Amino acid sequence: MIVNDETLQSLCSDMVNWRRHLHRHPELSFKEYETSRFIADLLESWGLEVRRGLAGGTGVMAKLTGGRPGRTIALRADIDALPIEDEKSTEYKSTVQGVMHACGHDAHTAQLLAAARYYTLHREETAGTRVFIFQPGEEFLPGGAVGMIADGALEGVDAIYGVHVWSPFPAGVIATRPGPFMACPDEFEVEIIGRGGHAGLPHQAVDALMTGAALVNALQTIVSRSVNPLDSAVVSVGQLHSGTARNVIAERCSVSGTVRTFTPEVRALVRRRMEEVVRHTCETHGAEYRFQFFEGYPPVVNDDHEAKRVFSVAASLFPEAEVRLADPIMAGEDFSYYLEQKPGCFFMVGAGRDDGTSAPHHHPKFDIDEQAMLVAARMLIGVADDSASLSAAR
Amino acid sequence: MIVNDETLQSLCSDMVNWRRHLHRHPELSFKEYETSRFIADLLESWGLEVRRGLAGGTGVMAKLTGGRPGRTIALRADIDALPIEDEKSTEYKSTVQGVMHACGHDAHTAQLLAAARYYTLHREETAGTRVFIFQPGEEFLPGGAVGMIADGALEGVDAIYGVHVWSPFPAGVIATRPGPFMACPDEFEVEIIGRGGHAGLPHQAVDALMTGAALVNALQTIVSRSVNPLDSAVVSVGQLHSGTARNVIAERCSVSGTVRTFTPEVRALVRRRMEEVVRHTCETHGAEYRFQFFEGYPPVVNDDHEAKRVFSVAASLFPEAEVRLADPIMAGEDFSYYLEQKPGCFFMVGAGRDDGTSAPHHHPKFDIDEQAMLVAARMLIGVADDSASLSAAR
Amino acid sequence: MIVNDETLQSLCSDMVNWRRHLHRHPELSFKEYETSRFIADLLESWGLEVRRGLAGGTGVMAKLTGGRPGRTIALRADIDALPIEDEKSTEYKSTVQGVMHACGHDAHTAQLLAAARYYTLHREETAGTRVFIFQPGEEFLPGGAVGMIADGALEGVDAIYGVHVWSPFPAGVIATRPGPFMACPDEFEVEIIGRGGHAGLPHQAVDALMTGAALVNALQTIVSRSVNPLDSAVVSVGQLHSGTARNVIAERCSVSGTVRTFTPEVRALVRRRMEEVVRHTCETHGAEYRFQFFEGYPPVVNDDHEAKRVFSVAASLFPEAEVRLADPIMAGEDFSYYLEQKPGCFFMVGAGRDDGTSAPHHHPKFDIDEQAMLVAARMLIGVADDSASLSAAR
Amino acid sequence: MIVNDETLQSLCSDMVNWRRHLHRHPELSFKEYETSRFIADLLESWGLEVRRGLAGGTGVMAKLTGGRPGRTIALRADIDALPIEDEKSTEYKSTVQGVMHACGHDAHTAQLLAAARYYTLHREETAGTRVFIFQPGEEFLPGGAVGMIADGALEGVDAIYGVHVWSPFPAGVIATRPGPFMACPDEFEVEIIGRGGHAGLPHQAVDALMTGAALVNALQTIVSRSVNPLDSAVVSVGQLHSGTARNVIAERCSVSGTVRTFTPEVRALVRRRMEEVVRHTCETHGAEYRFQFFEGYPPVVNDDHEAKRVFSVAASLFPEAEVRLADPIMAGEDFSYYLEQKPGCFFMVGAGRDDGTSAPHHHPKFDIDEQAMLVAARMLIGVADDSASLSAAR
Repeated sequence: MIVNDETLQSLCSDMVNWRRHLHRHPELSFKEYETSRFIADLLESWGLEVRRGLAGGTGVMAKLTGGRPGRTIALRADIDALPIEDEKSTEYKSTVQGVMHACGHDAHTAQLLAAARYYTLHREETAGTRVFIFQPGEEFLPGGAVGMIADGALEGVDAIYGVHVWSPFPAGVIATRPGPFMACPDEFEVEIIGRGGHAGLPHQAVDALMTGAALVNALQTIVSRSVNPLDSAVVSVGQLHSGTARNVIAERCSVSGTVRTFTPEVRALVRRRMEEVVRHTCETHGAEYRFQFFEGYPPVVNDDHEAKRVFSVAASLFPEAEVRLADPIMAGEDFSYYLEQKPGCFFMVGAGRDDGTSAPHHHPKFDIDEQAMLVAARMLIGVADDSASLSAAR
Repeated sequence: MIVNDETLQSLCSDMVNWRRHLHRHPELSFKEYETSRFIADLLESWGLEVRRGLAGGTGVMAKLTGGRPGRTIALRADIDALPIEDEKSTEYKSTVQGVMHACGHDAHTAQLLAAARYYTLHREETAGTRVFIFQPGEEFLPGGAVGMIADGALEGVDAIYGVHVWSPFPAGVIATRPGPFMACPDEFEVEIIGRGGHAGLPHQAVDALMTGAALVNALQTIVSRSVNPLDSAVVSVGQLHSGTARNVIAERCSVSGTVRTFTPEVRALVRRRMEEVVRHTCETHGAEYRFQFFEGYPPVVNDDHEAKRVFSVAASLFPEAEVRLADPIMAGEDFSYYLEQKPGCFFMVGAGRDDGTSAPHHHPKFDIDEQAMLVAARMLIGVADDSASLSAAR
Repeated sequence: MIVNDETLQSLCSDMVNWRRHLHRHPELSFKEYETSRFIADLLESWGLEVRRGLAGGTGVMAKLTGGRPGRTIALRADIDALPIEDEKSTEYKSTVQGVMHACGHDAHTAQLLAAARYYTLHREETAGTRVFIFQPGEEFLPGGAVGMIADGALEGVDAIYGVHVWSPFPAGVIATRPGPFMACPDEFEVEIIGRGGHAGLPHQAVDALMTGAALVNALQTIVSRSVNPLDSAVVSVGQLHSGTARNVIAERCSVSGTVRTFTPEVRALVRRRMEEVVRHTCETHGAEYRFQFFEGYPPVVNDDHEAKRVFSVAASLFPEAEVRLADPIMAGEDFSYYLEQKPGCFFMVGAGRDDGTSAPHHHPKFDIDEQAMLVAARMLIGVADDSASLSAAR
Repeated sequence: MIVNDETLQSLCSDMVNWRRHLHRHPELSFKEYETSRFIADLLESWGLEVRRGLAGGTGVMAKLTGGRPGRTIALRADIDALPIEDEKSTEYKSTVQGVMHACGHDAHTAQLLAAARYYTLHREETAGTRVFIFQPGEEFLPGGAVGMIADGALEGVDAIYGVHVWSPFPAGVIATRPGPFMACPDEFEVEIIGRGGHAGLPHQAVDALMTGAALVNALQTIVSRSVNPLDSAVVSVGQLHSGTARNVIAERCSVSGTVRTFTPEVRALVRRRMEEVVRHTCETHGAEYRFQFFEGYPPVVNDDHEAKRVFSVAASLFPEAEVRLADPIMAGEDFSYYLEQKPGCFFMVGAGRDDGTSAPHHHPKFDIDEQAMLVAARMLIGVADDSASLSAAR
């Protein structure tokens, strides 16, 4: 496993430019029209055969067969942005109001583009085949991975790898975890239906907003009381929208959010308690409701063997970096669908400040240390090359 | 005091048509452009001299001097609609998405138009002067009355009257109350500033939405615990908006609503408690905040003498109607500003079903019994004529 | 109506001594054994014929027939204390741990004793008959009045009067209100049954304490949202007791309190909402419950004519005092039962500091200005004498 | 390691009798006067030299030196009961109102008595020394272990072992965990000081009870929002007591409970958030407060080597039993203090029904499968004998 660092270094400024271009022009999940064209055009410009329009329209895939025998290794990036207003003041901040690359998918795309470019420059010495998967809609259920797989992304693939730049870890850290690594991210939506009325006459109305507030409050007890403290679970209400005027009692209240769990038992418990809490809280205040629970991605479960490969490649390529056994991560990832079909590993590359002051993912001031992209690209290539060798087959 | 009922009856179908036209084309406060033009054009078509563009742009006024000596009496209608989605299925339902005449101002406008038309047909026998005030923005602080007064609406006026169609009372009821009749409708807005973050990592964020829910909850205790049970007060949160995505912990939460009180002491108490509750609830959860309190209209305080006049005109014109001493009403009205300057009376005309099943004001299914409009117009004319006689001067 | 003030003045120091004696030795409702004996012994020592053991054991009654013809007038005092720890530092503070005369019934008893003594000294010039009712258990449902009436307290009585020393009013004020004057004081008790368990294993338990806290919280919304703001209502949880150890999740939670309303409609509404809130809040958290609602005294409704008598006697006896039309009072009084049977009036005599800094009734530091007792005794005698004259009959 | 099962079997009925005797006569922490005498008398009756009156009065210790050389091994039982009302209907249910052996310490005592009796019958073949520690007050901070150690319980001891009968595991299971095994059980107490008053006049009072309910509610958010979902933490309010009468607004509210954490960082975070939540919730409602945080036992951290010994002894003595790697346990144990000084291991012996329907520890219906006691006693002897051999020294 020898990554040609000279080539990679020469791609650095391109990679940063690609990332910044995408950062300026973020697109929401499954609407990554320009992003998708940008990726596909670049890949074609390097002579790769490209499939466009996958996973409902914006997925892109390319395949490169090396000059030497070897296994078929898929590398995956996600490409979508989030409905968050960019509050950074960098020159590359988002130009689209209310949309922002607040989770680093711009970097993922740029890194995988760099890896693809690298392989086009080293096709002859490459063993086996590389599949480059640019997947839409990771942030929005049911996610783009299912569509990519349905459209053939894993056909003939022996193993798959993905990387996430991760601002909670300082730049330089490489981390993953064998077994359950990332959570089930289920989602829910409650529509509370009260009875609207004049704000000065509350006794004639059923206050949907107040009921919604009571619900948010009562939902806290699921994690604090109903879940075993040794199990990990999160119930986060991400949105509450109610009311159209200050002087009108709201007829409706929309409450939605996400649940994170790691096991089917806890997942079922939280869902059952949510149903009970929603129903009875609405009844307490005389309101009607509609409750929907949207099953999210399965947990990301890394193959033990492939996680060891990532650790060993990291130690070999970056002898001075910190290679870390990560804690489980409460975020979800539809990379789990690939791992349900093929062995592989999803890993993190630190992209935060050393002092831990970086804004968290999904924050309006989220940003990354762009040097992480070089580490990530090098790791993708290193792991792929290691895994492609025929002796890697089990 | 003899209202010419034949004339009024002949205006009935016009009045209904005007009201339904306005109902189909509601316009929000201070944006009543077409409504204003509709009113002014009609008034001009009847030969009245009209002032347009008052109170910031959409207020209209006209004056008619009768053929006989007498006092100058102002009659006022409000003309604005509300940001509520019309959920009725009548043929005259709103054609504007999210905007609706849910408080009867369409009827008020049509009634006053009918009264104005009436006077143009009976100018010679009319004693004194009539001032027709079509005021914008009653529903939106600081209200249009202040602007109308600043633009001269009360110049030379001896007394002023206004009427509200009122769905909680059955059609046929006429009601008012000497002294404090309608409430102070103050408003407030709290902007909670937490720290956004990934919904699966609540410990890295400060959950502004959850803080807002806790605030709505804590605000209930002001009325339930801090206000003297013998005093009347309402604290209604009409709007809570927080969050941009299900899987993002909200950085901000906007909470706004209205306060209703009848005395300066209770008003001050509620405001002070709100400040305390907002501050300490935000501190409990580690959030920052901005609190704004918008002083609303003063209470509507009817002149005792003029309220008696309304009762006696009602008894005389409608000997079989129920003339009722109304309870104080928790709604506010910027008619109070006129009453701070001139003697007068604001009164209600029932517009609901006998069985009390009518939707309340500001409800998506609000509607009126249109027969109330005839009662209201007749009362306006009868009270104005009674008050215009020189012997009414005190 | 001429009260012999010389006699009354001479009784002053006795009256204070009696009151302080009772204050030092308070007894809980229906357990006023020593108090009852103290009263009866004094009355007998003045030659009055006394009935002991009324109303379940501790009620006392005496009758005095004057030397002149006249009506039969009852005067009533309540004699019980409260389960409150006396936190005063006066020399006459309670000597009984956890029991205290925190509502002035010690003064009521002493005042009525003084009036009885007065009449024994002026029997000959007294017109008609006086009935002295010393009633137990005013503070504890179902109250002692029902028992006193059952035992004949109102037999032959033409009118009845009672007085309350009142610390929220400054000494010198005399106040009452025709019509509804004091509230319905219903009570409730909720026993929440969860599932106990180790405090470190909440998921195996159903936390009755947490459910009780959520209930207290949700009950606030009845007054803040369900009751017409123009109606007066109070829902106060006075007691919550849950848990036997810090490290055990409570299996049970007892929540009890009082409801105050003035009309049957609001009373029924609050009761219905309480049932809904209790049921659904317990269901929200998976707990069982038992809900009991104890109907309290009816409202105290003063006879209009008798209230006028109190005002006129007050103005005559105390020309320099403030005679006040009181607001309705949210406290209840089982004096209402007497008023359901006989005309009469219940009135207040101010007993607080001028600056309004006196501790409220039922407060651990409650005390009275003892000069109020002289005013109260004089009013009782004056009103009784006025009412006893045969011309007072209607 | 050969436990003489014949001897042990012959002790079975005694052991059950001892346990049932103690179960009928439970005594609260540090008040185990009769329990202590019962233990010491038995030990003396078997010829052991006993130290009484340790750890403040009720601790008991005995030492037995075997006939063969070996190390000094301490075995520890805790002896106190809990303030819980026994709701069982067994013939051996508690005879003391409100006190109950609801955590199995009666069994622990009986088991260790059986082990002591065993050794007195096999003194000659016993290698090394056995120290029998009967410790008071495990359930009540600061616990009895500290006092026992101060009184010399660990002098000369090479290793220490303890066992807990455990109803969540079926009888037959033997379980422990190397490293952190049981939690930090900190405790807290909040005294809320409001302003008492008449329940019908809430605006004159500061409702301490309602503030306490709001506090319980707000405390839920510490675990649900402030603690990393991957960390384990519990905040349980075990007791809330407020109010002395239904019709008095409570002046005070006492809120107390326990916190469970496994690391210093989470412990500090929870404590800091509690301080903030308590302070600002009280301020929200205008109440004063006193907050106390009582640091509990350190976590029980088993020596890796000694945990392996327990596993291997279990496998050897009970080849058909389930020997289980336990999850961390949210309960605390002051056995941690012994483990801070000496190598050793704390382990669990299942005592519940197979179907998992046993009442949890600290539950009013808690009971054990008494066969667990034989397993536990045999394990104590087996582990002690294994550890006593000179070759066990490291």
